Amino acid sequence: MPTGDIEIKVKTAQLLNSCKKLPFEIKDFVKKTEALRLQYRYLDLRSFQMQYNLRLRSQMVMKMRDYLCNLHGFVDVETPTLFKRTPGGAKEFVIPSREPGKFYSLPQSPQQFKQLLMVGGLDRYFQVARCYRDEGSRPDRQPEFTQIDIEMSFVDQTGIRSLVEGLLQYSWPSDKGPVEVPFPSLTFAEALASYGTDKPDTRFGMKIVDLSDAFRDTQAGFLQEALGTPQGTVKAMCVSDGAKYLTRKDIEHIRKFAADHFNQEVLPVFPKASRNWNSPVAKLIVEERGSGLMRSMQAQEGDMLLLTAGEHSRACSLLGKLRLECADLLEAKGALLRDPARFSFLWVLDFPLFLPKEGHPGELESAHHPFTAPHPSDVHLLSTEPEKVRSQHYDLVLNGSEVGGGSIRIHDAQLQRHVLDTVLKEDVTLLSHLLQALDYGAPPHGGIALGLDRLICLVTGAPSIRDVIAFPKSFRGHDLMSNAPDFIPPEELKPYHIQVAWPTDPEAEKSSSGDPRHPES
Amino acid sequence: MPTGDIEIKVKTAQLLNSCKKLPFEIKDFVKKTEALRLQYRYLDLRSFQMQYNLRLRSQMVMKMRDYLCNLHGFVDVETPTLFKRTPGGAKEFVIPSREPGKFYSLPQSPQQFKQLLMVGGLDRYFQVARCYRDEGSRPDRQPEFTQIDIEMSFVDQTGIRSLVEGLLQYSWPSDKGPVEVPFPSLTFAEALASYGTDKPDTRFGMKIVDLSDAFRDTQAGFLQEALGTPQGTVKAMCVSDGAKYLTRKDIEHIRKFAADHFNQEVLPVFPKASRNWNSPVAKLIVEERGSGLMRSMQAQEGDMLLLTAGEHSRACSLLGKLRLECADLLEAKGALLRDPARFSFLWVLDFPLFLPKEGHPGELESAHHPFTAPHPSDVHLLSTEPEKVRSQHYDLVLNGSEVGGGSIRIHDAQLQRHVLDTVLKEDVTLLSHLLQALDYGAPPHGGIALGLDRLICLVTGAPSIRDVIAFPKSFRGHDLMSNAPDFIPPEELKPYHIQVAWPTDPEAEKSSSGDPRHPES
Repeated sequence: MPTGDIEIKVKTAQLLNSCKKLPFEIKDFVKKTEALRLQYRYLDLRSFQMQYNLRLRSQMVMKMRDYLCNLHGFVDVETPTLFKRTPGGAKEFVIPSREPGKFYSLPQSPQQFKQLLMVGGLDRYFQVARCYRDEGSRPDRQPEFTQIDIEMSFVDQTGIRSLVEGLLQYSWPSDKGPVEVPFPSLTFAEALASYGTDKPDTRFGMKIVDLSDAFRDTQAGFLQEALGTPQGTVKAMCVSDGAKYLTRKDIEHIRKFAADHFNQEVLPVFPKASRNWNSPVAKLIVEERGSGLMRSMQAQEGDMLLLTAGEHSRACSLLGKLRLECADLLEAKGALLRDPARFSFLWVLDFPLFLPKEGHPGELESAHHPFTAPHPSDVHLLSTEPEKVRSQHYDLVLNGSEVGGGSIRIHDAQLQRHVLDTVLKEDVTLLSHLLQALDYGAPPHGGIALGLDRLICLVTGAPSIRDVIAFPKSFRGHDLMSNAPDFIPPEELKPYHIQVAWPTDPEAEKSSSGDPRHPES
Repeated sequence: MPTGDIEIKVKTAQLLNSCKKLPFEIKDFVKKTEALRLQYRYLDLRSFQMQYNLRLRSQMVMKMRDYLCNLHGFVDVETPTLFKRTPGGAKEFVIPSREPGKFYSLPQSPQQFKQLLMVGGLDRYFQVARCYRDEGSRPDRQPEFTQIDIEMSFVDQTGIRSLVEGLLQYSWPSDKGPVEVPFPSLTFAEALASYGTDKPDTRFGMKIVDLSDAFRDTQAGFLQEALGTPQGTVKAMCVSDGAKYLTRKDIEHIRKFAADHFNQEVLPVFPKASRNWNSPVAKLIVEERGSGLMRSMQAQEGDMLLLTAGEHSRACSLLGKLRLECADLLEAKGALLRDPARFSFLWVLDFPLFLPKEGHPGELESAHHPFTAPHPSDVHLLSTEPEKVRSQHYDLVLNGSEVGGGSIRIHDAQLQRHVLDTVLKEDVTLLSHLLQALDYGAPPHGGIALGLDRLICLVTGAPSIRDVIAFPKSFRGHDLMSNAPDFIPPEELKPYHIQVAWPTDPEAEKSSSGDPRHPES
């Protein structure tokens, strides 16, 4: 048909079904709101783009299964989704059972089951697993999502990494160019220092540089002040062609972004710009160390530097965010920084095992989950300085998005009890079955989970994960087509021994009334 | 190792983990209760049988995917499990959302979604789909189960049937012998008349025979009486070697079974037995029509006949059950009727579209689901005599178990509305999205779902579907390993605006108290 060469002479025709006037034309160039597309999802699915996305997803997953199951001897095991709550599982949907007061929980991942399978001698497990997380309204999150879930016995980090590299290389669509392996890696500390984030987009440079030493005896007041504090640092980032492309308004936006989001000062410096936009402090800095700055930042004429000062991770995080803001701004002017046809994979390693628990000073929580094994070099710190212990967790990053994460797990029951009980102060009774299982000769094991929706979204270049899911929920968690969730007659709740606790707070009532289709458009 | 030929000389050894004394030995011949196996499932999984079952399951599903996806162009589409309740969906688990009074429901199957995908132009869909059904405590049922879910556009019954035959042939384990296609088929009416069930085990004969005409002028009182009523029939079944193998106690058991379960008389007749077990009526019958009976029943010396009289379907159902009872009894004595190595597939066709609604005289309900298309020859009866309409539903039966079911669907919105609204008197607003979708040029379509757990159970010869599921629930719906479902602190229910309605009925409280592990052992 695309050639126009085929003509059909119809002898007889039978009308199989008629079609009402469509609410929108099924053409990709016809713009429609996402709410309308989701309401008539069965029509939206007819679009070229949705057909392409779903068919590519199916094929890529099939290749992954082929790789894991046929080439590498993995066993596809289905694990339950009607499970029991996990400690701290406040984001787990609950399902009332027919026994009064007892609930199942929808698991956030098959984590416990995959570890139990290792204890059970199914030493290479995978599953394309449905997972559930109730995060309320968050853009680009789905209450149910899919992960490629993998676990192996007698494996180390390198083993998992090369398996996943091979998996992606094997399943990558041929028209998206070959995937080169092995993927580069950075430690968490390196990623933070150079990119200000644990998921750097390595398709472009603009790395963060530490200038603390260079500015040790500067006259510039705010740098002096920062360096005078015990944890003070000076950080800078070179925005390529920043002076060439960015407007005064853009630069104002950058400064405001830093003030609003980080409550922190950022100083644009034009070391060799024709534009005379340097502030008095920036001028002073250029006079003081102009050429040295140019050298250490590898800056070219036309570039802009962004300087900030403060505690290491705060300063890095700020510049990390500004790096992406600047990329957006530059690309809007026509510069090409992040080639959409390029796929830059990166492993990020050596995460901290614990983080300070938000809102509970002095307490710790798992940076990922409580089954993550500590870094072998740091085990001795577990009892004395747990906050300094690095983990055997690894993240897989693609073009600045986290597409996977995993770890070597704790296989020693004693150590697992210590982490849960002494460090995290969790209720171990909820996990007694897992602790017991480790006691029965659990092999060393580890695994990973790849976020399938996000991965396919990046491969297809779709603007949202909703474009690679056949029937997604809106960002408020609604199915705009069927209008789920919906009211249920009280008699249908009776067998489950629950009743609705209608809120007395009028705000909460308001948010639930009205047609849910419109507030989301 | 099985040869005993390999010896290992150890130079160094490292203890990776230690193992406590196991609660039972991991040997297939060591008998343990199912409750103990489920409590320590991670140990039970180490048994040869569980390893075999789960690995075979994984491989067979992989072959099915290969067949559907790679050989036949099907698209694997994941459909949501957080959905909205369906009309009459009293067996659907509910999931409270963060909006007061609103609930998601866990779907019993992706039925609506697969039909919507056909409207959406994904004309060949499959999914290994997780489904949910809350049937309380029923043996050999799981609250979550898996089906191979298939839907196609522009297809008829023959098309679906030959696809599924090819699918099973292709994925069948090579050590289980080849699968012969096409599978034989029976109409629902034929299956009922010959086997007294819609899922006959066709590995053995002992078919039901109608003897109404032969006994039209009998002197035997209870046959006379039955044939005197408008719907009266006389039915008989020949139990091969019944007179040879069965004891008086067995025969008493058979009569009691008929009386207890069907409140109906069954008459054992020994037309040419050396044993003198005939009752006076049986004697009369043998004298009246001995040789004719032998001929029409194809009975041999040593066989036993079972006679019953009454309304056609009742009489057939009784003999259908007794057929299986007798098979059990005969096999217990050493006869081989149902070869476990034989796989007898059978299609059952032309089911009724509607059945009388239980407990609502005069009303109808769908025999399968309301989207099933009527048989083309019976469409004209829809408005006048809907109870006589046959459907385009088909069941796949293997060795007497239903392993699949599907249908050609209604693709005409008008007809679908008529069925829902006028015939079934359902609340159509719950399905307005589907009705609307049919209006937009839905193609003719149909599909099937194969019950994967049951199928794998039959292939492996496992005694229960729990033996082909890695982490099954007990028949009371409990996870005996983790003790799910479990109590949840009230504060974790708050975001979902529900509270537990504790029963005031002491019976209900009793059933939920105590350790759930023991009542199930």
